[in-house]
Amino acid sequence: MKAYQDMTKEELTALHKDLLKDYEVIKAKDLNLNMARGKPDLNQIDLSLGLLDVLDSHYDFGQKIDYCNYGILDGIDEAKEFFASMLSTSKDHIIVYGNSSLTVMFDQVSRGYTHGYMGHTPWCRLNKVKFLCPVPGYDRHFAITEHFGIEMINIPLKEDGPDMDMIEQYVNNDETVKGIWCVPQYANPTGITYSDEVVRRFAHLKPASQDFRIFWDNAYIVHHLYDNHQEHVAEILKACEEAGNPNMVFEFCSTSKVSLAGAGVAAMATSVANKKDVLQHMAIQSIGHDKLNQLRHVRYFQNVESLTVHMQKHAAILRPKFEMVLDILEKELGGLGIGTWTKPLGGYFISFDAMEGCAQKIVRKCKEAGTILTNAGATYPYGQDPHDSNIRIAPSFPSLEELQQAAQLFTLCVKLVSVEKLLSL
Amino acid sequence: MKAYQDMTKEELTALHKDLLKDYEVIKAKDLNLNMARGKPDLNQIDLSLGLLDVLDSHYDFGQKIDYCNYGILDGIDEAKEFFASMLSTSKDHIIVYGNSSLTVMFDQVSRGYTHGYMGHTPWCRLNKVKFLCPVPGYDRHFAITEHFGIEMINIPLKEDGPDMDMIEQYVNNDETVKGIWCVPQYANPTGITYSDEVVRRFAHLKPASQDFRIFWDNAYIVHHLYDNHQEHVAEILKACEEAGNPNMVFEFCSTSKVSLAGAGVAAMATSVANKKDVLQHMAIQSIGHDKLNQLRHVRYFQNVESLTVHMQKHAAILRPKFEMVLDILEKELGGLGIGTWTKPLGGYFISFDAMEGCAQKIVRKCKEAGTILTNAGATYPYGQDPHDSNIRIAPSFPSLEELQQAAQLFTLCVKLVSVEKLLSL
Repeated sequence: MKAYQDMTKEELTALHKDLLKDYEVIKAKDLNLNMARGKPDLNQIDLSLGLLDVLDSHYDFGQKIDYCNYGILDGIDEAKEFFASMLSTSKDHIIVYGNSSLTVMFDQVSRGYTHGYMGHTPWCRLNKVKFLCPVPGYDRHFAITEHFGIEMINIPLKEDGPDMDMIEQYVNNDETVKGIWCVPQYANPTGITYSDEVVRRFAHLKPASQDFRIFWDNAYIVHHLYDNHQEHVAEILKACEEAGNPNMVFEFCSTSKVSLAGAGVAAMATSVANKKDVLQHMAIQSIGHDKLNQLRHVRYFQNVESLTVHMQKHAAILRPKFEMVLDILEKELGGLGIGTWTKPLGGYFISFDAMEGCAQKIVRKCKEAGTILTNAGATYPYGQDPHDSNIRIAPSFPSLEELQQAAQLFTLCVKLVSVEKLLSL
Repeated sequence: MKAYQDMTKEELTALHKDLLKDYEVIKAKDLNLNMARGKPDLNQIDLSLGLLDVLDSHYDFGQKIDYCNYGILDGIDEAKEFFASMLSTSKDHIIVYGNSSLTVMFDQVSRGYTHGYMGHTPWCRLNKVKFLCPVPGYDRHFAITEHFGIEMINIPLKEDGPDMDMIEQYVNNDETVKGIWCVPQYANPTGITYSDEVVRRFAHLKPASQDFRIFWDNAYIVHHLYDNHQEHVAEILKACEEAGNPNMVFEFCSTSKVSLAGAGVAAMATSVANKKDVLQHMAIQSIGHDKLNQLRHVRYFQNVESLTVHMQKHAAILRPKFEMVLDILEKELGGLGIGTWTKPLGGYFISFDAMEGCAQKIVRKCKEAGTILTNAGATYPYGQDPHDSNIRIAPSFPSLEELQQAAQLFTLCVKLVSVEKLLSL
């Protein structure tokens, strides 16, 4: 393969003609595909329908009949233990919620905005509040902070985590910086995992603001694609405690991509003092979350060992999809110098970087040929990718056959848009 | 029975001696009773455990397999129809949520505070925000508005609803009045139902503030104690629409006291425009609520007719409890002139008014003898009953036997504290 940059104008013009022809052929197929959504496919849903058999009217609740009634604000003991084990902490650090960790994160930001953490000034009373946003990152995180008018600052993500020099500079000197969004393991969308050194530096931050918090969204903590080639981010709560920053982290996780995406259970891990603060607010807000669904999950998944076996079944469905997309990317784009991409070992996404200024056009071309990608820019705060380069690929939901078509079309659009850029068309 | 006020000092002194003796006897029994909590008893929980059999791994989801995944923010169609039918409206007015209507109400207030309704100024940017609070009322409503620093104004509750003259005076003239808390049917704690005329006057309010909203907590809409003697509050959404105030109401309800208190489904009914406004915020906040629990409820309860049959079973459990308490109140206190109480036809509470200045002492005396009542004052904003008179009695949770002991003790404490007041002890 010859890199596009090395081609003559004539070669590029000829190539453009061929690519356009191929594009028109695919466009005529009237595809209806979607590589935008990081959601499980139906075979993955099937893996957890057994969850529905765990509780029935013959279930012996015994003393646990209380679980059907109001109360137990921080979740049932069994569920706290389950998540504590998953997050390598202890149950006194855990609150178990309803079906959505996104809602828990929204609530935490909202609480900072309306009431402040642990007696600190509510953010709505401050002139300026900033969050640091490692990029590319998760659009729904950015949407929450944008919703509350919080200024977002891009922090470049490297191979071992976000740029810690820059984070230290901001957090340790700017008291308007109140938080940072992190997906520390198999990050959305890059798939990278923060190194132990990065976690250590996080723990040793010396925040200018006492109510600075790390929003540690450990969404993919058990979502490995391979048995023998895994990444595990270091446990942050203990690291922060040992570094003298016990209250600096809110860690989030859920079973949404473990059991049923719409009917899972979410949890937060944090210091005992933070937990107490949160529960004081929750006492006003809630009569307790759905404890039966918590019980269902604990009984079905039992412990972290059987959870591991369950996650291997998810991996068996997801792995071929990731590998197919990566194969097509390599086969079609390898050596052309018009794009780079990540090769994640877990999580739900592949992150693709096109030549500068090409991402929006690629996404538009795919759409015109019947394939939806995540909006270009979505992986950046305010939907603005300064290089117009990053595209998030979500291989989980389409079937293998659909995915093949979509990935082929995607690479074709990358080529087409890249040639057009080089020809300044 | 001779009214206490008509007794001589000598008679009262002798009576006091006898009552004290009785009290010491009960105190020695070391009771451990609770008439504070408006929660269903275990026999009521049993009525709905069949809910758990509706969905299992053999359930034929068909196209509805989507219900297991992310999405469907406003709830599944079947659930919207179910609640629309319960609330006598149509499904385009309905949002179906998770397990707690309290959380939905908290969210609505929080949204007014952080973002404002339909483009109006967020309340956190205003110097003063007020809510009207018909009293006695529901402590958890008042706790939400207090949590957000909203000034609460007592509105006396009459037999047919709150004092509408006072409400019109406030709402139509004071633009800092942004809301009112209402439990319009079998109100908590009085059990009264708003008359059609009251609903009509609500609908015809001419609010000084465009973002004034009625928080219409229809918590007990199907919670009748009797088949042939029922109260039904008029449908408020349509009334407001016809009066030219289509966006003035948020109506809340849930199945918490229909199915399982901790694992039910909540809903809100409001105008299409309000719904759209709410969903814009929810899109940031949620990946959709637990749609399987919504489906479980719809399949189990089917329709409003079978729901009626189900609620009759609840009534069969609750009715004897209400009647026992009312009988004891009448037998022990009738004619003594030291208290009045409501005789509700539905809902979860009996409201008792002691002589002025006696409520706290009565609750304390009950507690010292091992019986917990709702805190005196809890039925008023800030926990402050200006007359120190109202006590909420919750007969649902204790067994009949426990309830008899608790009610006897309660009446004894009422007598004791009343005599002490009359003797100025």
